Amino acid sequence: MAVGKCIFPPMHQVSGIRLGTCNAGIKQSERDDILLIEMVEGGQCAAVFTRNAFCAAPVTVAKKHLGRQPRWLLVNAGNANAGTGERGMQDALRSCRELAALAGGEAAQVLPFSTGVIGENLPIDKLTAALPKALAQLAGENWSRAAKAIMTTDTVAKGASTVIEINGRPVTITGISKGSGMIQPNMATMLAFVATDAKISQPLLQRCLSAAVEQSFNRITVDGDTSTNDACVLLASACAEAPEIMPDSEEYAVFSAAVQTVCQQLAEAIVRDGEGATKLIRIIVEQAENDAEAVLVAKTIAHSPLVKTAFFASDPNWGRILAAVGRAGLENLQLEQVEIYLDDVCIVAHGGRAAAYTETAGQAVMNQEEICVRVVLGRGRACQQVLTCDFSYDYVRINAEYRT
Amino acid sequence: MAVGKCIFPPMHQVSGIRLGTCNAGIKQSERDDILLIEMVEGGQCAAVFTRNAFCAAPVTVAKKHLGRQPRWLLVNAGNANAGTGERGMQDALRSCRELAALAGGEAAQVLPFSTGVIGENLPIDKLTAALPKALAQLAGENWSRAAKAIMTTDTVAKGASTVIEINGRPVTITGISKGSGMIQPNMATMLAFVATDAKISQPLLQRCLSAAVEQSFNRITVDGDTSTNDACVLLASACAEAPEIMPDSEEYAVFSAAVQTVCQQLAEAIVRDGEGATKLIRIIVEQAENDAEAVLVAKTIAHSPLVKTAFFASDPNWGRILAAVGRAGLENLQLEQVEIYLDDVCIVAHGGRAAAYTETAGQAVMNQEEICVRVVLGRGRACQQVLTCDFSYDYVRINAEYRT
Repeated sequence: MAVGKCIFPPMHQVSGIRLGTCNAGIKQSERDDILLIEMVEGGQCAAVFTRNAFCAAPVTVAKKHLGRQPRWLLVNAGNANAGTGERGMQDALRSCRELAALAGGEAAQVLPFSTGVIGENLPIDKLTAALPKALAQLAGENWSRAAKAIMTTDTVAKGASTVIEINGRPVTITGISKGSGMIQPNMATMLAFVATDAKISQPLLQRCLSAAVEQSFNRITVDGDTSTNDACVLLASACAEAPEIMPDSEEYAVFSAAVQTVCQQLAEAIVRDGEGATKLIRIIVEQAENDAEAVLVAKTIAHSPLVKTAFFASDPNWGRILAAVGRAGLENLQLEQVEIYLDDVCIVAHGGRAAAYTETAGQAVMNQEEICVRVVLGRGRACQQVLTCDFSYDYVRINAEYRT
Repeated sequence: MAVGKCIFPPMHQVSGIRLGTCNAGIKQSERDDILLIEMVEGGQCAAVFTRNAFCAAPVTVAKKHLGRQPRWLLVNAGNANAGTGERGMQDALRSCRELAALAGGEAAQVLPFSTGVIGENLPIDKLTAALPKALAQLAGENWSRAAKAIMTTDTVAKGASTVIEINGRPVTITGISKGSGMIQPNMATMLAFVATDAKISQPLLQRCLSAAVEQSFNRITVDGDTSTNDACVLLASACAEAPEIMPDSEEYAVFSAAVQTVCQQLAEAIVRDGEGATKLIRIIVEQAENDAEAVLVAKTIAHSPLVKTAFFASDPNWGRILAAVGRAGLENLQLEQVEIYLDDVCIVAHGGRAAAYTETAGQAVMNQEEICVRVVLGRGRACQQVLTCDFSYDYVRINAEYRT
């Protein structure tokens, strides 16, 4: 069960973008496990990928194809095609070739993506056999089905959608994501596919995506494990009537802010659906010397199993938060300057428990389903935010039973 | 329940060292929660402390007193006196003053240590009221009672003891440790007290301890959380008949190797008793460019909740180990060079699953209570080892219920 109300939002169709899903039998269930996204000719594609050195075969192929005017994204759930060596590369390339032959393009115009169990060979025959059906399903309205088709341990489908105005003309940004465990994206999240009908050059689209990912998918963590398959793609079909978005323009500022918002909504949905999550924890670190140390402190708190189990128990055991701040490794941290808050309740000040703190006040915050931890370092002006969830029995159960 | 047979070993008494324990009512149970260790005049003391910036009040005081010819170690369980601000400092100092007055020494000759819950004031009146009784109990034979008195969430008492020969004369090294959660010592473990009757200068004793800690307590992790109270002390009473141990001598080599062995045994005992542990995992990283990168890779594996839950489930989900190696952040890691073994079973080679690997072989290793993960990086000659345990339902239970 995801934390909070996770209503799948109304999804605005993106002109120039069609989606098709079907069941290929990879995930051993009746549900769709293949997603195909097609963009019209003349669109642009930007992407960011996992920094895990053991990146999966499809990630390697997608990186290589990114510069070749991609028009198709081919995604399968149920198998990550990671740790599969040369065979995995051949399988990923074959999926591109077969799709291109059916769709009338070049293999290099297909970006492949896989998510699921690591270390088992991709059932490539099942996958390719399903391609004609996925192609036959292509339609602009399939965003909700697409979001469901890429789920693995996810319990809810994840989507975000907005329409902005560029020079008085509407521009749509719509995206989906998946992810629940092995979540500490570094460069990108598990999988997220965002599309817009904006007209924009590829370099500017890439810049926009990289900035948005840094403030969204790179600011969430469920368990600190960076996946081998993380990827986030932004397609721009250029089908909107609005004029082309130019660098350093006001239009770019509006557009990139909207892309960032969609990415943040998709990222937050992943944390809310974190494996076994019962609470959403927003960690804000203020008055840091720079962004890097703010993120470091926030992630040290976010990764502490002791902090996460205390949140699960709704226990205002603030000593564990203080200990995590202390071990984050900041040079010359002045303890007397540090303040820590649970929502508006000050728990730590002047190097110890805040004078006015009461366990009742702390407990009231901890009982909530969504909690904000705010750390004021008193060292500078940088501020960063990281989202995470708690650590429950169900996290252990889900991951102990994952392959059974 | 600790992993494996955790028999408390026969403890050789250390001449010049006496120990006394008693119940001060700090831990809310009938058991002893105060330990007093006394060393004769003329001995030397070395110590290493936590690197957590929020170190506890007793750590701050003990660091200050270390250079003042300490003769008494005063330890309480049940309260960490951490996050207690100025009041905590005053309490720690008062405990030193009161003990010194009773024992006939200077306050600066007392090193205080506390372990237990963070953020609550030390019940200083209870502690000082118990001091006369602890002093009355002082005896050389109390090592087993001492090991029990410092336990918190520990399920077994932890000790190690050895007698070596220096120039044909016996020298004893005996120590105790405690710790079970909030364990990723950085510079020292939770608490460990080791004593020897060797004659040795303070600087050489400190060098010996620092080297031993680096290869023992700094190579274990339960949950990646570095405590605010970690400390490891080595007392040398100079009461042995063996001649003084001199720098760079063969005797120093023998002595420091024995100290390291005792520290490693005490450190391993902590991991075996890790909160909720059902398995002991020995992670060896070989052929690294340097020690630092070997430790980095080993600790990335050791801290991965996904790896730890897979071990709990006895699931040979080696993809999670591979993913952890990949995200450790090594520059220019050549995947084709990397090999990963579970005991003697090769699971990863040439960038993917080893050709000869079978799930049956992997499962057989995973079913064991003690498992060795060996990662061969193929980059150099450095080799380091880290010990950890698995991640179970009980870890969540213990830490969710810690304060209830």
